[in-house]
Amino acid sequence: MRLTDIASRIGGELHGDGSIEITGVAGIKEARRGEITFFANPRYEEYLLSTGASAVIMASNGYEGDSRRAYLVNPNPYLAFLKVIEIFSPRDYDEPKGIHPTAVISEKARLGSNITVGPHVVIEDGAEIGDGTRLLPGTYVGFRSKLGANCLVYPNVTIREDTCIGDRVIIHSGTVVGGDGFGFTKTGNLHMKVPQIGGVLIEDDVEIGSNVAIDRATTGMTKIGRGTKIDNLVQIAHNVVIGERSIVVAQVGISGSTEVGNGVTLAGQVGIVGHIRIGDGSMIGAQSGVTNSVPPGVRYSGYPAREHSLSKRIYVAMTKLPQMFRAVTQLTRRVAALEERLDDEESS
Amino acid sequence: MRLTDIASRIGGELHGDGSIEITGVAGIKEARRGEITFFANPRYEEYLLSTGASAVIMASNGYEGDSRRAYLVNPNPYLAFLKVIEIFSPRDYDEPKGIHPTAVISEKARLGSNITVGPHVVIEDGAEIGDGTRLLPGTYVGFRSKLGANCLVYPNVTIREDTCIGDRVIIHSGTVVGGDGFGFTKTGNLHMKVPQIGGVLIEDDVEIGSNVAIDRATTGMTKIGRGTKIDNLVQIAHNVVIGERSIVVAQVGISGSTEVGNGVTLAGQVGIVGHIRIGDGSMIGAQSGVTNSVPPGVRYSGYPAREHSLSKRIYVAMTKLPQMFRAVTQLTRRVAALEERLDDEESS
Amino acid sequence: MRLTDIASRIGGELHGDGSIEITGVAGIKEARRGEITFFANPRYEEYLLSTGASAVIMASNGYEGDSRRAYLVNPNPYLAFLKVIEIFSPRDYDEPKGIHPTAVISEKARLGSNITVGPHVVIEDGAEIGDGTRLLPGTYVGFRSKLGANCLVYPNVTIREDTCIGDRVIIHSGTVVGGDGFGFTKTGNLHMKVPQIGGVLIEDDVEIGSNVAIDRATTGMTKIGRGTKIDNLVQIAHNVVIGERSIVVAQVGISGSTEVGNGVTLAGQVGIVGHIRIGDGSMIGAQSGVTNSVPPGVRYSGYPAREHSLSKRIYVAMTKLPQMFRAVTQLTRRVAALEERLDDEESS
Repeated sequence: MRLTDIASRIGGELHGDGSIEITGVAGIKEARRGEITFFANPRYEEYLLSTGASAVIMASNGYEGDSRRAYLVNPNPYLAFLKVIEIFSPRDYDEPKGIHPTAVISEKARLGSNITVGPHVVIEDGAEIGDGTRLLPGTYVGFRSKLGANCLVYPNVTIREDTCIGDRVIIHSGTVVGGDGFGFTKTGNLHMKVPQIGGVLIEDDVEIGSNVAIDRATTGMTKIGRGTKIDNLVQIAHNVVIGERSIVVAQVGISGSTEVGNGVTLAGQVGIVGHIRIGDGSMIGAQSGVTNSVPPGVRYSGYPAREHSLSKRIYVAMTKLPQMFRAVTQLTRRVAALEERLDDEESS
Repeated sequence: MRLTDIASRIGGELHGDGSIEITGVAGIKEARRGEITFFANPRYEEYLLSTGASAVIMASNGYEGDSRRAYLVNPNPYLAFLKVIEIFSPRDYDEPKGIHPTAVISEKARLGSNITVGPHVVIEDGAEIGDGTRLLPGTYVGFRSKLGANCLVYPNVTIREDTCIGDRVIIHSGTVVGGDGFGFTKTGNLHMKVPQIGGVLIEDDVEIGSNVAIDRATTGMTKIGRGTKIDNLVQIAHNVVIGERSIVVAQVGISGSTEVGNGVTLAGQVGIVGHIRIGDGSMIGAQSGVTNSVPPGVRYSGYPAREHSLSKRIYVAMTKLPQMFRAVTQLTRRVAALEERLDDEESS
Repeated sequence: MRLTDIASRIGGELHGDGSIEITGVAGIKEARRGEITFFANPRYEEYLLSTGASAVIMASNGYEGDSRRAYLVNPNPYLAFLKVIEIFSPRDYDEPKGIHPTAVISEKARLGSNITVGPHVVIEDGAEIGDGTRLLPGTYVGFRSKLGANCLVYPNVTIREDTCIGDRVIIHSGTVVGGDGFGFTKTGNLHMKVPQIGGVLIEDDVEIGSNVAIDRATTGMTKIGRGTKIDNLVQIAHNVVIGERSIVVAQVGISGSTEVGNGVTLAGQVGIVGHIRIGDGSMIGAQSGVTNSVPPGVRYSGYPAREHSLSKRIYVAMTKLPQMFRAVTQLTRRVAALEERLDDEESS
């Protein structure tokens, strides 16, 4: 699609070559040749110079002279960008499709308006589905679980009983919300199951990836705060609390009752023990093992996780360990030789 | 619910304030204010003093004078505790619901009495479902697979063909039992699939978390012993044998043909190579990489996994590595200076 | 089944005891007593001497005198081996079973001949299913997704829209192909979703394990090359490209836009950062953390991943760290003593 065609559909003043072909959309950091992006947050100004995008939507333009790419000036760049996405992305899911006759829906469930319920979906007694929410094929919604408005639940998701989900939440396929927490008490040799009678609370604008497991609380609630994004294959144990706007990358595991603050980033494959706290705004590097609480605003990494700058020095040092061993062996020999020479000298 | 109401429903002699509000149940270690717990095993006596529970069910009482919490004296504390759980937990799943008309069940399958088969369940030829077992919506039971009595299989579980499951087994959503083992032989450049014609054997009282993968054996059986509990997102490869009453925490991976003994604990994200043995009663710390067999009764951790006490010393030492590097550099300089001084002395 | 019976069904000249009982089939490395294997690739000649198999199928025989096991001489050993597999393995899935009436198939989907579509399968508008392909119960095939010929998709798989899959691809249960990539741009405090409008391309003869997550590309294609085999619970992020004939073991995580070459082996639980390249034929050891591109043909391990031989030396050195610390402390003391003695000497 040519840039002029896009411009005429979303509105705005075009600077640069409108005849170029636009093949897709992307964020300003990730965009490549042929793609269109947008610029709204001043903190990303540096990327305006380096972006690979062929066209940028932005509110004001001081870049008319920049011949490396085209600019589309629009008072609300993000809204315009969303319109471009609509042009490019398949919209199969976006039209409410109604309720498929193979879905099995309890008469005691409450359904909002304009919802989509795909084939083979099951909705149990007491469940509530908010306006505009789409449940794609094979998804299960348990007893008394509530989804807010405009949620999107992909195929083959399991939402167990007593789960409470806000508005605009996206849950990808294969994910299980509300599985029993892993709780046992030992009596003699035997592990007896501690009933997991709490629930899960997922706030507005959370997105959860594929094949994630979020366990229900023993009592009370496991909680994922507003705007937090969770990648694929993540493990979230019972009674974990994650704050708002945090990022949890793939294959992270968070043990029971740990609290993760607001704006935290947990990189891939991080493991966190139970009953600790990760402070607001902290970043934990990939594959770290976090064994103690982490203060706010720091960058931690390694095993056991500690200040990233220290971890880096430790890992550099490790690489030189074999040569240091040789150095110490040699030093030992030289010191022994010195001692002998001094002994000789003194005894002579 | 007030404690006196609970006492009157489960029976027993009440010591302490019966007017307190009880909000939930928990194990004696995990219990918090407002919760009721039980005490049965003398080994847990220390927790009787420290538990956060507001009420404790126990067989005999030497604690009448303890004003920190109430005591309910009952000859069978665990049975009484289970009754309390029934009071608190939702019982939707407990009533056999019969067979939903959308389930697709082979005429060559054998079904026990009092079973629940939810919507969209599939049961193939030759499968057997024991008395009182519940298969929740979307679950698949393959050819010739057998489940014992009183099992509970949550929604969207896949049990492949030739799986043999005991009594009272619980399997959480998204789990796959009996997927093909990862077995290939190389012919030239190509990996040719080695057919995985064995099965999976899961004994009585096993519990398996969400989105777990337990592969079928190449030949013979992958086996999970009686009373073993497996957390979410665990990988169990072909021909693995796990003993009885072991605990496998989330995101652990066990490679092919490895044997894990009885009463073993594998903490979160542990990885174990193939064809080794983890001895009875051993504990492996979180994120460890186990590359060799582990004797019985030890505590191992780290990468590669070794005695936990050594690992701890190593990790403490690592933290001081940068300063040791500086110390060695300084020592080298001082030794060189000493050598020079001695040389000077001797040549003077 | 007796070896003579097998020989008469697959053809070939039998050397050794035909009366032995054969209980299963296995690769030459893995085979045990009672099993039959095959030998075709000269590179595996060493295993001919050590295999535990009771019988070996091979093209020529210089081993007639070897009394440890029986030999079946057949001009095409692998073809003969496949016939033996057919004898031993349950063939439930192999007969096309037609389309189950509970499957929900769009009128706008194109279906090949001899396909199997199990109960509760969903096939959306514009999807294409190749000849002989089997979709087992509860599987979802999204809008415009294409599967080639003779694919086998196990129960409860989710194939999202715009996925392109070649011939003879096997996908195990619970796996999600085409979930949204984990892409957000920050505007102020908020993470705004970057639409993931690309797809996934899976070439011929790929096998994908259980509960794997393969994300769709932001734009363009996430790609898995011909003959590559992926184990359970693996995470493959958006825009990852994996070459041909590579092996990805369980619980590996590959971050966005990373390229993995041909013939690469990634052992269990490896983590790889985004935007790097793993060269052809390289092997990465279990649990490694790969933070930089890896050249072709090398063996890397550890965290951060480096030459395996160096990693091994580092890990051996780590074990001796506590004793080296003591050595350095002692050396420091001895050097101080020497300095004092020399000072004394010189001042005397």
